[in-house]
Amino acid sequence: MTSSVDVQTTTPLDLGPARALSCRECGHRIPLAAEFACAECFGPLEVAYEFGTITRADIEAGPKSIWRYRNLLPVPADVDSYPNTDPGLTRLVKADRLAAALGVRSLWVKDDTGNPTHSFKDRVVAVALAAARQLGFTVLACPSTGNLANAVAAAAARAGWESVVLIPSSLERAKILTTAVYDGALIAVDGNYDDVNRLATELAAEHEDWAFVNVNVRPYYAEGSKTLGYEVAEQLGWRLPGQVVVPVASGSQLTKVDKAFRELGELGLVEPTPYRVFGAQATGCSPVAAAFKSGEDVIRPVKPDTIARSLAIGAPADGPYVLDSVRRTNGAVEDVTDAEVVEGIRLLARTEGIFAETAGGVTVATAKKLIETGQLDPDAETVLLITGDGLKTLDAVQDHIGPRATIPPSAAAVREVLNRG
Amino acid sequence: MTSSVDVQTTTPLDLGPARALSCRECGHRIPLAAEFACAECFGPLEVAYEFGTITRADIEAGPKSIWRYRNLLPVPADVDSYPNTDPGLTRLVKADRLAAALGVRSLWVKDDTGNPTHSFKDRVVAVALAAARQLGFTVLACPSTGNLANAVAAAAARAGWESVVLIPSSLERAKILTTAVYDGALIAVDGNYDDVNRLATELAAEHEDWAFVNVNVRPYYAEGSKTLGYEVAEQLGWRLPGQVVVPVASGSQLTKVDKAFRELGELGLVEPTPYRVFGAQATGCSPVAAAFKSGEDVIRPVKPDTIARSLAIGAPADGPYVLDSVRRTNGAVEDVTDAEVVEGIRLLARTEGIFAETAGGVTVATAKKLIETGQLDPDAETVLLITGDGLKTLDAVQDHIGPRATIPPSAAAVREVLNRG
Ligand SMILES: Cc1ncc(COP(=O)(O)O)c(C=O)c1O
Ligand SMILES: Cc1ncc(COP(=O)(O)O)c(C=O)c1O
Ligand SMILES: [Zn+2]
Ligand SMILES: [Zn+2]
Repeated sequence: MTSSVDVQTTTPLDLGPARALSCRECGHRIPLAAEFACAECFGPLEVAYEFGTITRADIEAGPKSIWRYRNLLPVPADVDSYPNTDPGLTRLVKADRLAAALGVRSLWVKDDTGNPTHSFKDRVVAVALAAARQLGFTVLACPSTGNLANAVAAAAARAGWESVVLIPSSLERAKILTTAVYDGALIAVDGNYDDVNRLATELAAEHEDWAFVNVNVRPYYAEGSKTLGYEVAEQLGWRLPGQVVVPVASGSQLTKVDKAFRELGELGLVEPTPYRVFGAQATGCSPVAAAFKSGEDVIRPVKPDTIARSLAIGAPADGPYVLDSVRRTNGAVEDVTDAEVVEGIRLLARTEGIFAETAGGVTVATAKKLIETGQLDPDAETVLLITGDGLKTLDAVQDHIGPRATIPPSAAAVREVLNRG
Repeated sequence: MTSSVDVQTTTPLDLGPARALSCRECGHRIPLAAEFACAECFGPLEVAYEFGTITRADIEAGPKSIWRYRNLLPVPADVDSYPNTDPGLTRLVKADRLAAALGVRSLWVKDDTGNPTHSFKDRVVAVALAAARQLGFTVLACPSTGNLANAVAAAAARAGWESVVLIPSSLERAKILTTAVYDGALIAVDGNYDDVNRLATELAAEHEDWAFVNVNVRPYYAEGSKTLGYEVAEQLGWRLPGQVVVPVASGSQLTKVDKAFRELGELGLVEPTPYRVFGAQATGCSPVAAAFKSGEDVIRPVKPDTIARSLAIGAPADGPYVLDSVRRTNGAVEDVTDAEVVEGIRLLARTEGIFAETAGGVTVATAKKLIETGQLDPDAETVLLITGDGLKTLDAVQDHIGPRATIPPSAAAVREVLNRG
């Protein structure tokens, strides 16, 4: 666990169509490596590609997982021959009852609770693992507040890798147990998420064989979120929706869904029809919504205070790029209160039978608010990204729901409860 | 909710290839209806079919859900045009690391935690709902100890049906909340599961528009478990595994997986190669294993006492047919202690990154015991059915797992934890 390898030279790199890392700020390019910040300007590095010819038929004939898009990701062509959790190709649900409740014409829910550890994090971790293997790493690691911890620990177990997962010691029981069960090195840190994050950055510099998925291999990791966009388009019958609502924590997912839609248009896989990207935040942690509303370009960090813990990143790394995406596409970033989050979870559950975590409640409630305030067009086709599972955030709803009644075992008692309504 | 309809005459029945109900005991046939017990001998009724020509290509071109097998189920051909949860087509995972740990050559895990409410119950409920719609019912109902409650409440919400779900009031918090959130009529009953079950049977007789999925529409419901068998065969490349290990509560699932394998052979969709079916129970509720071991044909009811609550049916309706299946195929029924169940959950998690509920722990631990006792052939290809999700039974593991350590936020402290191992 402490041996150190030179990640640049041990194996010939095969990262599929990926060709370089390029800086989002200054465009400076460097060879593919385990780097995440530009040496020129400290801007974030992003994967740059040279795509071959890719057809719908190729993709449709591929694996029933995100690997059907392997030729659009920084992974080798034989990526699915290595043990991994095979996430993706989750349901795109036509949500007519939710549409009626919200007063929109055509609505879809992308239900990412069907992933192996029940959040979209399985997608980004699978791509990070595949790239990390090529880059010569041998340990999978992360700082996390929950979903990422679950996904990293599970993916490492499946691959036979060691894992090091750092969490704040105050984390909820469900998220701790669902990480610990995979038997990697789960370490609770006395401190908040920012402390954990700082510790991870320090450790990443010390241990050259540790791939911190969201730190030193972040450029590859982040590309995994593109698969949400690809799947939505394919599942709609190879076309782009008119509007998409995406939850925002660091902001990475939103920018990558936007990137996916653009790539599909550029590659001729869909008609490049116009689409609008909307961001969703909880009011208790809404630095990106605040910047959007005040027309600023700079994100002012906040101290999070919301039940939507998985979105509680007060200083979102990709916040400025979220602003770029929503402004370019004529979208918006909106935020909702914790009470609205709970009502969003319940609305989705009772209309569509889908139990989302707090992040999903944020997305549904934000969509509702965007409609009510005239920001979202009720006549355009809309997709909501539901990225995590309600079983992991039971605390958020427990005071609001429960059995209608507790009765003795008699038919008359049942009748009475039902007549009461 | 109290209006009563004649379920036999309101609509022309379209249940696809289903032609009649026939008694498993005496063969007596009746027209398709909402009946579950033979009027001649009280034996259980089962769906009898007349299959048309079905090809692999037809199935492969079908929906990415259990509905690709609609021509093998008691549902109309346009079943997937009605709102439903679209369960199925879950991952079949090549489990090389678990295989190595167990000392077998070729092992697969069918991971049904990927279903919409994270258990195989979504399959049976989806088929029950489709049949119930044809039979003229308007309310979806069940008695349940958890997984079924989740699946019924979600499916009803998605379809816009009312639901009535009866549970013992002592049920775990996670299973109560994950049912209540869908906002049907969830009623807690002071009593054990047997009391709840009896109450359901009484209510089914009173309310002709209530489809109790596992009572008055049980013959249709039960057929949904066949899809596990179909998927395993299709995902293996259209062939049958040599051995399959199936958890046993009422015993329905095991007999239907057996039925699915036989049907595929008879229809020419796979080579009818020999296979062996194994049943898995928790020792604290092992009436079928006890009967198997003592060579008896009759199941002696027991009072369940095990952490595997979803399998805790002391008087399993399909127990005798489980014995038929395992004896005919040269399989066995084995049982494991609660400590082995926990170890089974942990073994699966740490080798394959799959977090199963207690029923999954039963299956893994039973497979281990069957191998150690020479009952399961380590050289034959084996499939384990993992039918439910660990997030719903956290209580079972919480005293056994947790973070390796809780430390201050320093790299030195991390190093110390890892050096300790
Ligand atoms: C369930 C869920 N949805 C959405 C997000 C937002 O992701 P991003 O940081 O890419 O904005 C997260 C981040 O942790 C999450 O856990
Ligand atoms: C997770 C799980 N697995 C397996 C079973 C067994 O099903 P059966 O009653 O068909 O034997 C159940 C039954 O409730 C279950 O919940
Ligand atoms: Zn730069
Ligand atoms: Zn009979």
